[in-house]
Amino acid sequence: MKIVKIILAAVMLITMSGNPASASRTVKWKLAETWPSNLTPLASPPALVAKMVEEMSGGKFIIRVEGKEKHKAPLAVLDMVKGGQYQMGHSGSYYWKGKDINTIFFTTLPFGMTTAEQYAWFYYGDGMKYMQQVYDRFKVLSYPGGNTGVQMGGWFKKEINSLDDLKGLKMRIPGLAGEVFAKLGVNVTNIPAGELYTSLDRGTIDALEWVGPGMDIRMGFHKVAPYYYTGWHEPASEMQFLVNKRAYDKLSPEYQAMLQAAMKVASADMYYENFAESAEAWDKMKTDFPDIKVKTFPLPVLKAMKKATNEVLGSYAAEDPLFKEILASQRAFMQKARQWTVISDYNYIKTTLELEQ
Amino acid sequence: MKIVKIILAAVMLITMSGNPASASRTVKWKLAETWPSNLTPLASPPALVAKMVEEMSGGKFIIRVEGKEKHKAPLAVLDMVKGGQYQMGHSGSYYWKGKDINTIFFTTLPFGMTTAEQYAWFYYGDGMKYMQQVYDRFKVLSYPGGNTGVQMGGWFKKEINSLDDLKGLKMRIPGLAGEVFAKLGVNVTNIPAGELYTSLDRGTIDALEWVGPGMDIRMGFHKVAPYYYTGWHEPASEMQFLVNKRAYDKLSPEYQAMLQAAMKVASADMYYENFAESAEAWDKMKTDFPDIKVKTFPLPVLKAMKKATNEVLGSYAAEDPLFKEILASQRAFMQKARQWTVISDYNYIKTTLELEQ
Repeated sequence: MKIVKIILAAVMLITMSGNPASASRTVKWKLAETWPSNLTPLASPPALVAKMVEEMSGGKFIIRVEGKEKHKAPLAVLDMVKGGQYQMGHSGSYYWKGKDINTIFFTTLPFGMTTAEQYAWFYYGDGMKYMQQVYDRFKVLSYPGGNTGVQMGGWFKKEINSLDDLKGLKMRIPGLAGEVFAKLGVNVTNIPAGELYTSLDRGTIDALEWVGPGMDIRMGFHKVAPYYYTGWHEPASEMQFLVNKRAYDKLSPEYQAMLQAAMKVASADMYYENFAESAEAWDKMKTDFPDIKVKTFPLPVLKAMKKATNEVLGSYAAEDPLFKEILASQRAFMQKARQWTVISDYNYIKTTLELEQ
Repeated sequence: MKIVKIILAAVMLITMSGNPASASRTVKWKLAETWPSNLTPLASPPALVAKMVEEMSGGKFIIRVEGKEKHKAPLAVLDMVKGGQYQMGHSGSYYWKGKDINTIFFTTLPFGMTTAEQYAWFYYGDGMKYMQQVYDRFKVLSYPGGNTGVQMGGWFKKEINSLDDLKGLKMRIPGLAGEVFAKLGVNVTNIPAGELYTSLDRGTIDALEWVGPGMDIRMGFHKVAPYYYTGWHEPASEMQFLVNKRAYDKLSPEYQAMLQAAMKVASADMYYENFAESAEAWDKMKTDFPDIKVKTFPLPVLKAMKKATNEVLGSYAAEDPLFKEILASQRAFMQKARQWTVISDYNYIKTTLELEQ
């Protein structure tokens, strides 16, 4: 039976060399997302990642995506990924500001960077380094997961002509922008997405902020609050992929590389998808809903918002050295990046607008 | 020897199931790029694609990148990929306008779309469809390969105050913008990159266009031509990956998916890299070279440029039905997209600038 042994050895050799066990092993993961699984474009990146890693691995690396309608715990995504019930999550970093205020930097800041500036900070500045530093305490890895570009400033039942018009206003607006509005006398509340339209219609709230024309028009807000304000508070909201670190470390280097590639494609692609959808919706809005009044907040109101933003950020920075450090990194990067944005894209658009006059 | 046959059958079974021959076969490709292999950020996308597919395939899909310094034929990249000497190329689509004028649409147009608008057209409009239609005749596949954002309008020895200042001016500027300048009385020439500085210094040319602050400052143009004009002619120059179709069809579906993912990551990433480098260079320029005079062309000059652009595009459209069709697709998409750009990013930057005053 010597020949049998030789052949068995050959089997082992072929199996081990041509087909490394680590790379070809079937891996089945689950991903929990904060959104309903049909809520594009927010739900597009996880679906695309699942499709891409399946194709790249020849059907051996499978990620099952579960939307909010399945797991019923949209704001427990970080906990579920940390605990290992899900190997991955897709959400927004600023939802975790109650756990760690430093998570807010990886979504967007009021009066902060644009999408191009922010991606440059993530990949060619200190963004990825700081993001991982913040998420290390949760034992999860965090990656950019898609960008909405500039979000609109929200829908208001009445026009905002001065700071007085904000006092006592009841508004749904989450995150730091909510803290800023609160400083200006707004009664800030949070209301689940499913109840937003009814709350606005019945006057439980006077105003709300959602995303942008593509997603907003589907919600019908324009029917009950005709003033649509341009954005200042979320100039480049980045979504977030979360990966359980232990699960990631068990992946072969090949699967790790596939996952990294897929996440980066999906984050860029969501920006393009949302941009295209917003452009389409904005155009349609002007013909289908001519009663919508598009406004920019008056300059004195914006000045007060900026002052309040700096106060809110300053008070967090005074309490937390890491907050102070990341804020300084973003501000220094933005100062350089903004000059380039102004001389390149901004100046170009300004020129083309002048030519049309 | 029956047991030997059984074991051999087992070997085949293991090899075929756990390790599909198509996916695990070693593939060695070569990629020719139009640039020297150290000319970042233009040379970054091919290097990144090679690194990514190597990692994702566990070292079995290898792409050797060869720069201009090796193959000495920067403007024969399309021919070499078509002929199969190289399986891949990295270049700029508008370099092939002598072979087919319709290739220009996939780089940029004077007064055309911005980077975000153009990627939205590629992936969520008709861009990819038209690009493949144009490249089918060369039997190559074409994909976005990185974007420079708005390119600067070039370096001039003298200030341009009127259309008269353009008459008789000797300028290096390639592509459609060269045709536009020629219509305005400029003597347009093309000069190899290595001779540009000397030509400008000695007065062989009075002006030239290159890329943007990151790459321009390294060339030293500011020392001999202090007027630096903002951009109008290449608002979003997209680089290009070329893939020989027969070679691509021989890849396993897994390797095809890896290559697609890597190209899409690399194209997005070059935009971030170039943005970060431009921001850094612009900031440094202002302190290190305060004598550089940044200017925007006067409105009457820009009006003449726009009129000439439309005439050039119109005459190509009159000759070629496909040109007419793609131009109409870009214009229709841009009309919608630009409204959204103006209300989102442009309005946001405008607001932040007003707040600084």
